[in-house]
Amino acid sequence: MTIKSILPASLLLLGAGTLLAQDDPPTDYAKFEGSAEYVKFALNNLWILISAALVFLMHLGFASLESGLCQSKNTVNILFKNCFIIAMGVLTYYLVGFNTHYPAEWQMDGFLGLGGPAGAEAGSADFTSEYNPGYTYWSDFIFQAMFAATAATIVSGAVAERVKLGSFLIFATLLVAFAYPIAGSWHWGTGFLSRLGDGDAAFYDFAGSTVVHAFGGFAALACVLILGPRAGKYTKEGLKPILPSNLPLATIGAFLLFLGWFGFNGGSVLSADAQGVSTVFVTTALAACAGALASIATAWIVLKKPDLSMALNGFLAGLVGITAGADAISPSMSLVAGGVAGVLVVFSIMFFDKIKVDDPVGAISVHGVCGIWGTLAVAFLSDAATLSSQLIGIVSVCAFAFVFSFALFFILKLIMGVRVDADEESEGLDVAEHGAPAYNK
Amino acid sequence: MTIKSILPASLLLLGAGTLLAQDDPPTDYAKFEGSAEYVKFALNNLWILISAALVFLMHLGFASLESGLCQSKNTVNILFKNCFIIAMGVLTYYLVGFNTHYPAEWQMDGFLGLGGPAGAEAGSADFTSEYNPGYTYWSDFIFQAMFAATAATIVSGAVAERVKLGSFLIFATLLVAFAYPIAGSWHWGTGFLSRLGDGDAAFYDFAGSTVVHAFGGFAALACVLILGPRAGKYTKEGLKPILPSNLPLATIGAFLLFLGWFGFNGGSVLSADAQGVSTVFVTTALAACAGALASIATAWIVLKKPDLSMALNGFLAGLVGITAGADAISPSMSLVAGGVAGVLVVFSIMFFDKIKVDDPVGAISVHGVCGIWGTLAVAFLSDAATLSSQLIGIVSVCAFAFVFSFALFFILKLIMGVRVDADEESEGLDVAEHGAPAYNK
Amino acid sequence: MTIKSILPASLLLLGAGTLLAQDDPPTDYAKFEGSAEYVKFALNNLWILISAALVFLMHLGFASLESGLCQSKNTVNILFKNCFIIAMGVLTYYLVGFNTHYPAEWQMDGFLGLGGPAGAEAGSADFTSEYNPGYTYWSDFIFQAMFAATAATIVSGAVAERVKLGSFLIFATLLVAFAYPIAGSWHWGTGFLSRLGDGDAAFYDFAGSTVVHAFGGFAALACVLILGPRAGKYTKEGLKPILPSNLPLATIGAFLLFLGWFGFNGGSVLSADAQGVSTVFVTTALAACAGALASIATAWIVLKKPDLSMALNGFLAGLVGITAGADAISPSMSLVAGGVAGVLVVFSIMFFDKIKVDDPVGAISVHGVCGIWGTLAVAFLSDAATLSSQLIGIVSVCAFAFVFSFALFFILKLIMGVRVDADEESEGLDVAEHGAPAYNK
Repeated sequence: MTIKSILPASLLLLGAGTLLAQDDPPTDYAKFEGSAEYVKFALNNLWILISAALVFLMHLGFASLESGLCQSKNTVNILFKNCFIIAMGVLTYYLVGFNTHYPAEWQMDGFLGLGGPAGAEAGSADFTSEYNPGYTYWSDFIFQAMFAATAATIVSGAVAERVKLGSFLIFATLLVAFAYPIAGSWHWGTGFLSRLGDGDAAFYDFAGSTVVHAFGGFAALACVLILGPRAGKYTKEGLKPILPSNLPLATIGAFLLFLGWFGFNGGSVLSADAQGVSTVFVTTALAACAGALASIATAWIVLKKPDLSMALNGFLAGLVGITAGADAISPSMSLVAGGVAGVLVVFSIMFFDKIKVDDPVGAISVHGVCGIWGTLAVAFLSDAATLSSQLIGIVSVCAFAFVFSFALFFILKLIMGVRVDADEESEGLDVAEHGAPAYNK
Repeated sequence: MTIKSILPASLLLLGAGTLLAQDDPPTDYAKFEGSAEYVKFALNNLWILISAALVFLMHLGFASLESGLCQSKNTVNILFKNCFIIAMGVLTYYLVGFNTHYPAEWQMDGFLGLGGPAGAEAGSADFTSEYNPGYTYWSDFIFQAMFAATAATIVSGAVAERVKLGSFLIFATLLVAFAYPIAGSWHWGTGFLSRLGDGDAAFYDFAGSTVVHAFGGFAALACVLILGPRAGKYTKEGLKPILPSNLPLATIGAFLLFLGWFGFNGGSVLSADAQGVSTVFVTTALAACAGALASIATAWIVLKKPDLSMALNGFLAGLVGITAGADAISPSMSLVAGGVAGVLVVFSIMFFDKIKVDDPVGAISVHGVCGIWGTLAVAFLSDAATLSSQLIGIVSVCAFAFVFSFALFFILKLIMGVRVDADEESEGLDVAEHGAPAYNK
Repeated sequence: MTIKSILPASLLLLGAGTLLAQDDPPTDYAKFEGSAEYVKFALNNLWILISAALVFLMHLGFASLESGLCQSKNTVNILFKNCFIIAMGVLTYYLVGFNTHYPAEWQMDGFLGLGGPAGAEAGSADFTSEYNPGYTYWSDFIFQAMFAATAATIVSGAVAERVKLGSFLIFATLLVAFAYPIAGSWHWGTGFLSRLGDGDAAFYDFAGSTVVHAFGGFAALACVLILGPRAGKYTKEGLKPILPSNLPLATIGAFLLFLGWFGFNGGSVLSADAQGVSTVFVTTALAACAGALASIATAWIVLKKPDLSMALNGFLAGLVGITAGADAISPSMSLVAGGVAGVLVVFSIMFFDKIKVDDPVGAISVHGVCGIWGTLAVAFLSDAATLSSQLIGIVSVCAFAFVFSFALFFILKLIMGVRVDADEESEGLDVAEHGAPAYNK
C-alpha cells in the first residue's frame, strides 16, 4: 500500500497550501541517531536508494534488450539513444519533472501543476519530503528520477531502426520532462485520479502498470503509427521476419530488467517494511515466472516452436502485469496476473504484426497491452480497486500519452522529419548517423 | 552460523509437532514498529530479500557462462533452457518444493516429507517462518526459491550442445520439483543429516557445497554418462577441443556468479548480523580470488598458457569450495579452501576429458568435485564438523542425485530419447529446434 | 563527510600510538542485539558490504568496457588481465595492502608505514576497526580491498593491445600491493595529506578522485610513454582510428561502472546515514548524467557526429569528476562538476591523440585528467577544501604514481621487455599469448 495513494485525500482535508505533514515528523534526525526511530528511518531510506540503483540498472536492461532484438547495423544508434535518455531523463527530472510529478501547487486543480527544479523550492533543504516523511527528500528524488526515463526508453524500442536521431531526442526530452510527470501527477501527485470518489474509489496503480508502462506503450503506438513499419518487413508475400542480431545480449537485457523490477516494485513500498517488501518480491517473481512459462507454452502451441524472444517477453509481460497490484494481489493470484499477461503478449505481438504496426521489440504489447491488463487485474484479482476507477485511470493516461505523442511527433515530422531516408535505413543508422558500426574485428 | 543447522536438534528436543519456536517471537511486528526489535527484524528481512535478488542474478550468470563457453550454433537453445529453468524452478518451488524442502510433516521420518504449495498450509498467513523467526515467511520462500533452480542449471551446462530439449525440460522439472528439495530436507529441513549423532555431529554444509553444488554436479554426471560426448570431440587422433564462442559473455557470466555468491553465502547467514555477514563476505571473496590465482598458475604450468576459461572456472571453484564453510573457516584458511579448489578444478577437467566424459562447461568439476572438496574442507580447516559426518552427507546426497538422475534420464531415453540426432547436432540446435540462430547481421 | 577525513586530526591530538578510539565504542555488539545501537551498527555494516559488492561489479564494468573498446583479436588478453587483477588485488590487499593503507605504525611518520596481513595484527580479532567503530573490521577490509585493484585496472586499459602479459602482471601486482596503499595512506591512513595545516586544511578527496582515479591515470600515463602507441595508429597520413570491436559490451561496461559508483561513492559515507548517503547518490547520478550530456554535445560539435564512445566516457568523466566532492558539493553544483568533466574528457582524448600518446580506452583522460578536475572542483564548488591543499594532494599523489610506475615499468622493460613483438601485435595477443580467439563460431 503506497503512502502516496493514501495521502492525497488527507492532504486535501488539510487544505491546499497548509502542508502540516511537514511538521509532524522529526525533521532533524541527527537528534535521533541512537534511537530506534532514527535507525528505522535510515533503513527505509537505504532501501529506497538501493531500489533506485536497481531501477537504474533497468536502463541497461532496456538498452541490451533493444539492441539484442534489433539488427546489428542499428546497434550504435540504439545504445546512443539509451545513453542519452537516462542522462537527459535524470536531468530534466531534476530541472522540472520532480516538482511537476509531485506539484506543490496546482495551476489547474488536480490536472496540471508545473514545477521548478528539485531542491529549489522553499523547504527543499528540509530533511524529508513533505508527502513522505519516511526517507529523505533526495532519496525520493533519485528513486523517482530513475523511473522517469523509462517512458522514453519504451518508445525507443518501438521506433528503433528507422527513426531520425535528432527528432527522437527532442521527442523523448519533451515526453520525459513534461508529459510523463503530468500524467503521473494525476495519480501519484494527489491529482484527480487519486481523488476519484473523494479518494474512496481512487485509481490504484501501485508501481505504475499504467502511469509508467502503458503510458510508454501508448506513446510508442502513436509514434509508430506516424513512422510506419521498417522497410521490407511487410511485403506482398506476407510478413518477412527481421531477425534479432544478438540474443545473448537480449537475454542479458531481460534478466537485468527482471532484477531491476525488484527495486521498481519493491522500492514502491516506500519503506523497508518487512511484510510489504517481502510480499511484493514474491508476487513480482511469481508473476514474471508465470508470464514466461505462459508465453513459452503459448508460442510453442501457436508458433510451433520454443521461442526465446517470446520467453523473454513473457518475463517482462508478467512483470508489467503485476506492477499495478504487486502489493494488493496475493501470491497465488499473482500467478494469474502474470500468466494471463504471458498469453496476452504473444497474441498481441501477432496482432500488431497482422495490422502492420511494426514494433521491433514488442514494446507496445509488453508495456501497453500488459500494462492495461495489469491495471485491470487489480480489480479482478484483489479488492483494492473498482473496475470503473481502473478504467478511468487507464483511459485518461493512455489517451493523454497517445494524443500528446501523436501531436508532438506529428509536429516534428512536419518541421524536421522523423524518419531516416531509405538509403540510410538500408545501410543502417550506425554508419549513416554515427560514423561507425557496433561490431568490428 | 546458520540457524537452520542449529535448530534441528533443538526442535527434536522439543518433540516433533510441538513447534514452540512459533510462539516465542512476536508474530505481529506491526506492534513493534517503533522498537529496535522491529527494526532489526526489518533489517534482517531486507538482507534476505537483497540476497534473493543476488542469487536470482546468478541465473543470468549461468546462462551467460554456458552460452559463452559453448558454440554459437547452440546459443539460443542454452538461453532458452536457462529461461525455462528459472521460471519453472520458482513455480515448482512454490507448488511443491518449499514445503518438501522444509517439511512440516515427515512421511518417512527424516528421509521424505513431501509438501504442498507454499502459503497453503495452516499458519501460512503468519508473519514469520516457524523454523526461523528472524524474517518473514515469504522472504524465506523467495530466497530459497532462487536457490532451487540452480541444480538444474548445473546439469544444463554439462549436457549442452546435444541434449533433446523436451527431455531435458522434463528432467529438469522433476529434478527441481522433487529430488532437490528432498535431498535438501535431509540437511536443512531437519532430516537425518541434521540429526547425525543426535545433532551433535550434524552434517555441516553452510550454504550448500554438497546439497546444492555437488547435488547438481552428480546429477550432471549421470546425465552425461547416458548422453555421451559431443560428436567430434574425442577422435582417434585424440581430443579435439571445441572452442568457446564468446569469451566476453562467459566472463560476464563468471563475474555475475561471483557477485551473486555474496547473496548465496551472505544471505545464508539468515540475518544481517554484522560479524556473521562480514566474515562470510571476506571468506567468500578470498576463496574466489585464491581459486582463480591457483587455477591460473596450475593451467599455466600444466597447459603451458595463460588460460582464460580456467581462470573463470577458478573463481567458481573457489566459490564452491568455500560455500560449505564460509561461516566456519577463517579468512586465512579460506585461502586454502579456495586455492585447493582452484588446483583441483584444472586436474578434474583434464581427468574427465581423459576418460571421455564430455562436460562443455566443466560443471561436474566445478560443482561436483569442488563441492565435495568444500564440504570436506569444513572438517579439515575448521572445527565445525567431523570428517565422518561430512562423508556421510556427501555420499548420501551425491549418490541420491546420481541414482535419481540416472534412473530418470534413462527412462526418458527409453520413452522419448534424450539426444538430438546427428544432423541436428551438426547443424546446431538453434536452427534445428528453435528456428533461428542467436547471432545475425 | 567521511570519518576518515576527520579522524586524523583527532588522533594526532590524542598522541600517536594511543588509539583511544578503540576503547570508546562497545566492542562486543552481541550484548546489544536488541538495542537500537546494535541495529544501527548492523545497518551501517550491511551498507558497507553491499557497497563492496557494487564496487566488485565495477571490475566487470572495466573488463567489459576495455574489451568492448579494443579490437577483438586482443579480447581474451584483456579479460585475462582483468580476472588476474581482481584476484591478485584482493589477495595482495589482504597480505600487505590493508595494513599499509591504514598503517598501525608509521616507519616514516606520515609518509610510509608498511604493514603485514589483515587480521594478523594485535586486536585483529576485535569486532570493529580502531579508526572506524561504525562497522566490523572485515567489512572495512573487503570494501577497501575492492577499491585496491582499480588502480591497476585503469592502467590495463591504457596499455591494452600491445603490452606483454607477464610484465604487466608483475607491474600490476607491485602497483596494487605497494604503491596504491602507500599513496592512499597519505590521505586515508592519517598520513601527511590528512595533516596539512595541522589537519585544519587537510587534503579533501571523499572517495578518491585523486588517490584512486588520478593515481591510476598517472600510472597509466607513465606506462604508455614507455610502451609507445599501437602499430598503425599514428601514420604519416595522420591518425588512423582503430575501431572498437563490440560497442554493446562497452556500453554494458559503462553502465555497470555507473551502477558500481553508487557503492564506490555511497559506501564512502562509511555509514548508512540517511542524509549522507542520499545526497551522495544524487550528486553522483547528476554529475554522471551531466557528464554524458556534456560529452555528447561537445563531441557532436567538435567531431560532427553523435559519438557513442564519447557518451560512455562522458558518464565516467562525470563520475570521476564528482568522486572527490560527492558529499561536499551540492546537487546543483554537481551538475557543474560533471558537466565540466564531460567537456574536458573529449578535449583531453583529442589532445593525447594529438601528441601521439595512445590510450585505447581514454583511461588517462577519464581517470587522470578528470580526477584532477574533480579534486579541484571541491575547492571551486564547495567550501570543504582550499585550492592549495588540493594542489598539494594532486601533485604528491600523481607525481608518486608517475615516478613509481615509470621506474618500475622501465626496469621491467630492461629485464624482460614490456611490449610484444610486431608479429604478435599484428596477429593479436589472443592467439599469440593465450592460444585461442575470444569469438568463435
